[in-house]
Amino acid sequence: MNIWVVVSFIAGVISVGASVVYYQWVAKQDPGDERAQRVAGWIEAGARSYLKKLYTALTGLAVALAIVLAIVFSLQESPAYGLGIAVTFVFGAVCSAVAGYMGMTIAVKANVRTAVAAHKGLNPAFQISFSAGSVMGLAMVGLALIGMSAIFAITGTPEMVLGFSFGASTLALLAKAGGGIYTKTADIAADLVGKVEVGIPEDDPRNPAVVADNVGDNVGDVAGMGADIFDSYVAAAVAAMLLGSALTLQGDQLTLYTIFPLILCMLGAFASLIGLQFVKVGEDGKPGRALNMGTILTSVIFAVMIIVVVLITGMDLAVFWATLAGLVTGVVIGFTSDFFTGDDRPPVVETARVSGSGAAITIITGFSYGLISVVPSVIGIVIAMLISYYVGEASSVINGVYGISISAVGMLAISGMIVSSDAYGPIVDNARGIAEMAGMPEDVIATTDVLDAAGNTAKAITKGFAISAAALTVLALFTAYASQIYLASGVQLQISLLDPMVVAGVFLGAATPPLFSALVMLSVTHNAFDMIEEIRRQFREHPGILAGTEEPDYITCVSMASENALSSLVIPAFLAVGLPLLVGFIMGPEALGAFLGGAIFTGIIFALLMANAGGLWDNAKKYIESGHFGGKGSDAHKAGVVGDTVGDPFKDTAGPSLNTLITVMSLVSSLFAPIIAGFHLF
Amino acid sequence: MNIWVVVSFIAGVISVGASVVYYQWVAKQDPGDERAQRVAGWIEAGARSYLKKLYTALTGLAVALAIVLAIVFSLQESPAYGLGIAVTFVFGAVCSAVAGYMGMTIAVKANVRTAVAAHKGLNPAFQISFSAGSVMGLAMVGLALIGMSAIFAITGTPEMVLGFSFGASTLALLAKAGGGIYTKTADIAADLVGKVEVGIPEDDPRNPAVVADNVGDNVGDVAGMGADIFDSYVAAAVAAMLLGSALTLQGDQLTLYTIFPLILCMLGAFASLIGLQFVKVGEDGKPGRALNMGTILTSVIFAVMIIVVVLITGMDLAVFWATLAGLVTGVVIGFTSDFFTGDDRPPVVETARVSGSGAAITIITGFSYGLISVVPSVIGIVIAMLISYYVGEASSVINGVYGISISAVGMLAISGMIVSSDAYGPIVDNARGIAEMAGMPEDVIATTDVLDAAGNTAKAITKGFAISAAALTVLALFTAYASQIYLASGVQLQISLLDPMVVAGVFLGAATPPLFSALVMLSVTHNAFDMIEEIRRQFREHPGILAGTEEPDYITCVSMASENALSSLVIPAFLAVGLPLLVGFIMGPEALGAFLGGAIFTGIIFALLMANAGGLWDNAKKYIESGHFGGKGSDAHKAGVVGDTVGDPFKDTAGPSLNTLITVMSLVSSLFAPIIAGFHLF
Repeated sequence: MNIWVVVSFIAGVISVGASVVYYQWVAKQDPGDERAQRVAGWIEAGARSYLKKLYTALTGLAVALAIVLAIVFSLQESPAYGLGIAVTFVFGAVCSAVAGYMGMTIAVKANVRTAVAAHKGLNPAFQISFSAGSVMGLAMVGLALIGMSAIFAITGTPEMVLGFSFGASTLALLAKAGGGIYTKTADIAADLVGKVEVGIPEDDPRNPAVVADNVGDNVGDVAGMGADIFDSYVAAAVAAMLLGSALTLQGDQLTLYTIFPLILCMLGAFASLIGLQFVKVGEDGKPGRALNMGTILTSVIFAVMIIVVVLITGMDLAVFWATLAGLVTGVVIGFTSDFFTGDDRPPVVETARVSGSGAAITIITGFSYGLISVVPSVIGIVIAMLISYYVGEASSVINGVYGISISAVGMLAISGMIVSSDAYGPIVDNARGIAEMAGMPEDVIATTDVLDAAGNTAKAITKGFAISAAALTVLALFTAYASQIYLASGVQLQISLLDPMVVAGVFLGAATPPLFSALVMLSVTHNAFDMIEEIRRQFREHPGILAGTEEPDYITCVSMASENALSSLVIPAFLAVGLPLLVGFIMGPEALGAFLGGAIFTGIIFALLMANAGGLWDNAKKYIESGHFGGKGSDAHKAGVVGDTVGDPFKDTAGPSLNTLITVMSLVSSLFAPIIAGFHLF
Repeated sequence: MNIWVVVSFIAGVISVGASVVYYQWVAKQDPGDERAQRVAGWIEAGARSYLKKLYTALTGLAVALAIVLAIVFSLQESPAYGLGIAVTFVFGAVCSAVAGYMGMTIAVKANVRTAVAAHKGLNPAFQISFSAGSVMGLAMVGLALIGMSAIFAITGTPEMVLGFSFGASTLALLAKAGGGIYTKTADIAADLVGKVEVGIPEDDPRNPAVVADNVGDNVGDVAGMGADIFDSYVAAAVAAMLLGSALTLQGDQLTLYTIFPLILCMLGAFASLIGLQFVKVGEDGKPGRALNMGTILTSVIFAVMIIVVVLITGMDLAVFWATLAGLVTGVVIGFTSDFFTGDDRPPVVETARVSGSGAAITIITGFSYGLISVVPSVIGIVIAMLISYYVGEASSVINGVYGISISAVGMLAISGMIVSSDAYGPIVDNARGIAEMAGMPEDVIATTDVLDAAGNTAKAITKGFAISAAALTVLALFTAYASQIYLASGVQLQISLLDPMVVAGVFLGAATPPLFSALVMLSVTHNAFDMIEEIRRQFREHPGILAGTEEPDYITCVSMASENALSSLVIPAFLAVGLPLLVGFIMGPEALGAFLGGAIFTGIIFALLMANAGGLWDNAKKYIESGHFGGKGSDAHKAGVVGDTVGDPFKDTAGPSLNTLITVMSLVSSLFAPIIAGFHLF
């Protein structure tokens, strides 16, 4: 057995171990007085209720899909192969679920502990919240490494890792899109009835939807984002492994280049583990700066590690440059997305300024900046792709497409650090909510505010990072798909834009992400209306709630949001899994390739547009609230609130789900490529 | 000389002649009393002022571009060729300008005459407004036919018609994007100061921007839309002529297939001329129904004419089927876009219904339906493309790409009728404004309301039609580009999505329409702010204006809107003309092909999204105003107004300019293809 596979497996175990250590440390911290614990208890119970529903739905879907995969691939290849795909598929879904579960359960413990620690100061509060975020980051990376290296060690083929990746992506789709619908349903419903109709403030415990809203932050940003990056992380690695195994090399060399993606992930895990230790903040420090420094430090350590390993193993230097191209681009795109959403940058300030002329101008301006924000990221992705491709082509050992896939892995390898920063966001957001709901002193709330602001910046950066990483990943998967078709049929796929079937495929593919976005956004408003009715019903039937003498029924709102979100996913899930198969079996492998291409192009563009426009509106509102252009209660503020509410499903529901959509589409196509190559109508 | 070319030329002359007859008839109608004439006089003067500025800017640009074209093509080919391209380029711009000028000058005469005729009833008012609309439709078709057939008759080569088409498109870009910025700047500024700040109604003569606003309707929807369809009409014909001349045929047969697009345009012109005669409305009739019947009748007459000509000339039946595929798809897509924007259809009603919960929900819902509306149109375009391609491939005479180009011409051949219906819209919209401003009786205003509602539906249908026609046109141009590269270099262009330079090209191309949209929309809000300052200044310095004792300075607002709109076009115009050349000369002809492809895909999707979402919000507001969900003044209405204002630059600025953007990009690429094939950096 290759020593690097063993080391990767061990790195995975160490990572999970570290995650468990952080988990226990956070759990041991002071959970505060009874009142704080009661508030936190509602959120914890709500999160449990949601997770139970999510995992129940997932189990049903996973079992059904596993049976289909087992039957189809048993007939196509062999019963052993079919069984293998089914088992790795379930394994992938379970690993992703376990990482999400750990992240969620600690997040809903860490929130109250952060709020309590904020009595003592910024540093203790930051330590707890960031450590809790690290639980998710480390668990995710660790479980992915364990899964991928174990499967490769046992089966010796990357195809089986494809099953693992497909399993992880299926979960990610449910967790991300479902979580996105859930969180914004609760948010919008809570705001519309609470703030607008009855005039109680944000996070007021009298609002029956307040728990659902706070659970939603965790559901969307901890479990959802974690599953999303888990998904990209594994998909990038498997695409690179597939393309590595197709290189014209022999014996040990072939194995080395095939498992190089695992080596990168392993190095990234260690780099993240080291980088996490340096994320500290002094009493007057800036948490945002600490997070950014952690990311940069991790990147530098990672880069050094790679060059050392490449020199030791005697690999072609091209793999180093390809990795570096991805890594640098990922970090740079992350930071530039901060330009369009940062709350002291021209786009946000300008959007806030024009808000005085009404909500329509806020929307037009923010949407326009969102459109412009697409351009630098697209240029970044294109440059990373071209550099890694030509570096690969210039090499005598690897090829261009392998180079692209390696750059995607290079970008994602430091996910441990990135996810930790991201998961920190909703924890401190919740901490702020709990401080408010539990009536903690003003200075504690102020401390949680500082933490929260850093969380928002981290979130914007992570989103930019996640989308660009997904872009390179799906480009690699796209090539892997063509390679799979070639392996199955011996025919080089021609996806020429001068073939009208290809143009038709691209057009249909390009229309899919907009359709998907529309469906999940309409689900948000539709479900929010149901929940609004429920909140009104509680206020009407129990007048004691508004008077503060009776506790609202939080759990009904949570259940409602969960059930509606999951049942809204039937058509979107079909678009992700069923539509590519339909296109492939009817229009043939060229059209399916084109379809994937089209979906990738608009998927990336809409994801960037929606994430950045949403973040921009959010911060424009906050900028006004901080006293500019009339401050709270002014006309500008009212317009800012409209912008923020439009941005909510943009940035937290539709935008981030698009990554997962195109990853699932690409994976299902690669997986079924051998069958589609053999049978299609046209 | 081929007899069909002569007939086409004659058809052009007849069409222009008919246009002049209509012009004179409308001009002879009763212009009403002094007060009505004074109001109309402001709009007429405003329109003249705008046109003067537009044509001055155009002259500068056209002369500069003509000189560049003359020099470049003199060096590349021969001085005669260079001169030819420069002359045809200017000729194209002039023909489009003349058609636009005729349409505009009669529109600003017809508006007051329609309002005056509305005293007598619906039918006389309808006759005037629709006849005036026909002036534009017939002039446009006629001048295009004269231009194309004269150039082909003299030079005998479709390449020179390419110069004509590029000239027309350059004008269209200025007219459409400039007009779009102009009209919404005036509209938003007039509304924000007038309705919101000082609380005077729409079209109140005390508002200094009211004339600019009314001029804007003509600028955007008469001159702009006319130039847009002129542009697609000529571009589709020239693409088909280029692909026809590349068929493997000899002598007369080759000529026949090369000029078949001209024959189609000629037949469409006659069919439109006949169809126009049947657009009548009884006193209780529905003008909308009359317009739709006219379109369907014209289509049927046209289809019958084609089959007769195909049988007479002994051409392959494939050309008939390809034409029919385009024609039917154009009409069907036009009517389905009515589903998403029609004011009694589920999307509009649902958007109006949810508006009670605030503007954010209005935006999210309308935007989502806009995204969904993309899907049926894309499917329609794909079906038309595949049918016309495979019909062409199955034929022994023509090929598939020629089939696609013919379907585009088939769709656009009835433009005479389509443009007439479209130009009717702003005329009746203006008539309504004049009736209001001139204090005409309530029943007259009610009559103009009925005419206006029909105009809105016609507008929605025309937009769907214009976008789908542009889609097929640019697909044909895309193929023509590849064909031009092949003719110049002898190398078959490979635009494979598995080539990373192609993926890079598609990505960059796909990001261009969003960027273009953002720039023109930001110009609208930016210019609106300047105009708001001007309106406030007038109110402040001349208190007599609001008291009704002093006349506002309308012309300053008009000049301001014109100048700002035209100067906002510098970067968008560079994106259209300069960026493709930059991509071509740096990244090579494959990447340029890919760039065009990417721009086409997202260009069509964003155009459909923005046109339909904008139309939907507009009608949702009107639906609420007509007494539903609380009616005027309700919360739902306020939210509806926000949606409508967001939709304004969507549907009237960014959305419709995208057609022109991708047409100009495709034309400039085809024109420079021989040079790019010979020189590029990578």
